[in-house]
Amino acid sequence: MMRRTLHVPLKDRSYDVFIDGGDLRFSSRKIGSLLKEPKAYVVTNTTVKRRHGARVENAFRRHFETHWIVIPDGERYKTLSTVETVLTKLSKLGANRKSLLVALGGGVVGDIAGFAAATYMRGIDFVQMPTTLLSQVDSSVGGKTGVDLATGKNLAGAFYQPRAVFVHTDFLKTLSQREFLCGLAEVIKYGVIADRRFFDFLARERGKILSRDAAALVRAVTRSLSIKAEIVGRDEREEGERAHLNYGHTLGHAVEALTGFSRVRHGEAVSMGMAFAARLSERMGVLKSEARVEIEGLVKDCGLPILWPKLPSERYLAAMKRDKKAVSGNIRFILPEKIGKVSTITVSPGEIASCLSAKSSFK
Amino acid sequence: MMRRTLHVPLKDRSYDVFIDGGDLRFSSRKIGSLLKEPKAYVVTNTTVKRRHGARVENAFRRHFETHWIVIPDGERYKTLSTVETVLTKLSKLGANRKSLLVALGGGVVGDIAGFAAATYMRGIDFVQMPTTLLSQVDSSVGGKTGVDLATGKNLAGAFYQPRAVFVHTDFLKTLSQREFLCGLAEVIKYGVIADRRFFDFLARERGKILSRDAAALVRAVTRSLSIKAEIVGRDEREEGERAHLNYGHTLGHAVEALTGFSRVRHGEAVSMGMAFAARLSERMGVLKSEARVEIEGLVKDCGLPILWPKLPSERYLAAMKRDKKAVSGNIRFILPEKIGKVSTITVSPGEIASCLSAKSSFK
Repeated sequence: MMRRTLHVPLKDRSYDVFIDGGDLRFSSRKIGSLLKEPKAYVVTNTTVKRRHGARVENAFRRHFETHWIVIPDGERYKTLSTVETVLTKLSKLGANRKSLLVALGGGVVGDIAGFAAATYMRGIDFVQMPTTLLSQVDSSVGGKTGVDLATGKNLAGAFYQPRAVFVHTDFLKTLSQREFLCGLAEVIKYGVIADRRFFDFLARERGKILSRDAAALVRAVTRSLSIKAEIVGRDEREEGERAHLNYGHTLGHAVEALTGFSRVRHGEAVSMGMAFAARLSERMGVLKSEARVEIEGLVKDCGLPILWPKLPSERYLAAMKRDKKAVSGNIRFILPEKIGKVSTITVSPGEIASCLSAKSSFK
Repeated sequence: MMRRTLHVPLKDRSYDVFIDGGDLRFSSRKIGSLLKEPKAYVVTNTTVKRRHGARVENAFRRHFETHWIVIPDGERYKTLSTVETVLTKLSKLGANRKSLLVALGGGVVGDIAGFAAATYMRGIDFVQMPTTLLSQVDSSVGGKTGVDLATGKNLAGAFYQPRAVFVHTDFLKTLSQREFLCGLAEVIKYGVIADRRFFDFLARERGKILSRDAAALVRAVTRSLSIKAEIVGRDEREEGERAHLNYGHTLGHAVEALTGFSRVRHGEAVSMGMAFAARLSERMGVLKSEARVEIEGLVKDCGLPILWPKLPSERYLAAMKRDKKAVSGNIRFILPEKIGKVSTITVSPGEIASCLSAKSSFK
């Protein structure tokens, strides 16, 4: 059986990530071994429950009882109010300090469940079982949990590490193509920021990945996570290198904000952002033309967008400055130096504006 | 000038507690030195703002700008919804990851502000400036923050340490006698659990303390906090010895729950709980009669109650079992062995019931 294991080293909060095609017997047994009582509280959403609930509960049943806490499906439920609902439900179901919570779902479920675990009785154990490609390669590792406020995204949250992460790639079979591609954008990101060979693998095996072949996916997810885990292990609280993971996200967040967080999906916005950062890097003489073409090529060949919405530069600049990563007047970008290596570079508003409005970007 | 400094050792989250009569110039300067921007966000409630707002802002003004975030006064506002209000206000005022929050007020303000600091952008700096005796000797040190849920008290929260704590005893002058005494109950607790000499000091200097003499208060607060800091430093996440701080709280919480969290104040409930635990300890042959009489004597002489409400034992037992510190059928009590030393002892429901209903306790 093909399974990869990744160790995320974080002193007393280290944990393992297990990646396989879909061996729920394995994950059930492992979760069982973490339990201090013969039951687990599974937080999920209505869609995931309908698609995978029965199979998951069947697998869990051999080892422990399952209490379901089901939240509505959708980004707009990533709120403190949903967290409160989960916390109150935990309390009503009799959860205590020794209870364990399972986050079964995509990024929103992971954020809500992780934040609930971080705060229920000031912190209980939890494990992640991500069901989307985006959450498998991104939010399930790193310990970030958070919710949106009326005034902005991810403004409230906690750094809180899971006890283990179980990535089963067969959950991805039921994803829509659009949702799958959104995750793929982050996979490509890892290649650009840290690993030329991985980038080449993605370009070469694109067909297998797009057809959701288990072996190709396990490899793609494993390498993505190992890059993330290495970076997070060196910089847990996002003070330096971890910023590299934001490649594509500076413009990406602005696109999301300016389009009302609905029309353009996160992965699509990040794709635009990666293409933009590559162009900016080229203009500044940091990245060679050929490399920029290669990056744009892979993004495009995967079916992801490389052209950002045509909006006045001032609106983009204002949105970027509002983003919590902005510092004083200038804006820090993660720019590729070559495929496999990025740097944090402070760019002037003028430079950004002229790159934003360069004709070539809009054709 | 009389000022005591306590160091709370917690590896990379160590901090100092400064205790003095009311030197706001000192605390303003210190807070100023912690700031990464020339402003601080002060969370307080309407009552504290009215009583102390102008004086505090005047002192702060020499060093930095003050942004006020004022919440309503009262235990019933210790909710996630109030935390969300504070977080949203922070965001609207432009607070960022480098901002610092000041918790100016009693336990509720400290809990709300601490939880907001723990979660705003996944954690920003905060300092405590407690204004009640209870918060000065208890909640301002230990790193516990939390809010109530519909299903129970303190069910959601985080362990999060302040950067510094400033205890000015002159804030206590405006407290009602009842509120002052509630804090004094916790001061007596420290004597019983850890320090015979401190207990004797309290018995001897009771008059000065009750008249809120600065020197006596600085000494009482300092010794209380040093006992708490020592215990918390050895057991930050409440897995062992920290439970000793719950002396008086097992029955105390039950009294609060059974009287609807309003008629009996926390410190009064703890006083009853301390007297009850002393009686229980005596009955079990752990504590000598004379020591029990001494404990009851000091509590009573300070004007605090030693008799718990006359309610059926079954209701007390059910409430204690619901409390998060209960484990399976039996109930763990913190019982004094002598004045200055306590142990965690598991007591059977039968033993508790007969002590609860012993006639002598109700006269």
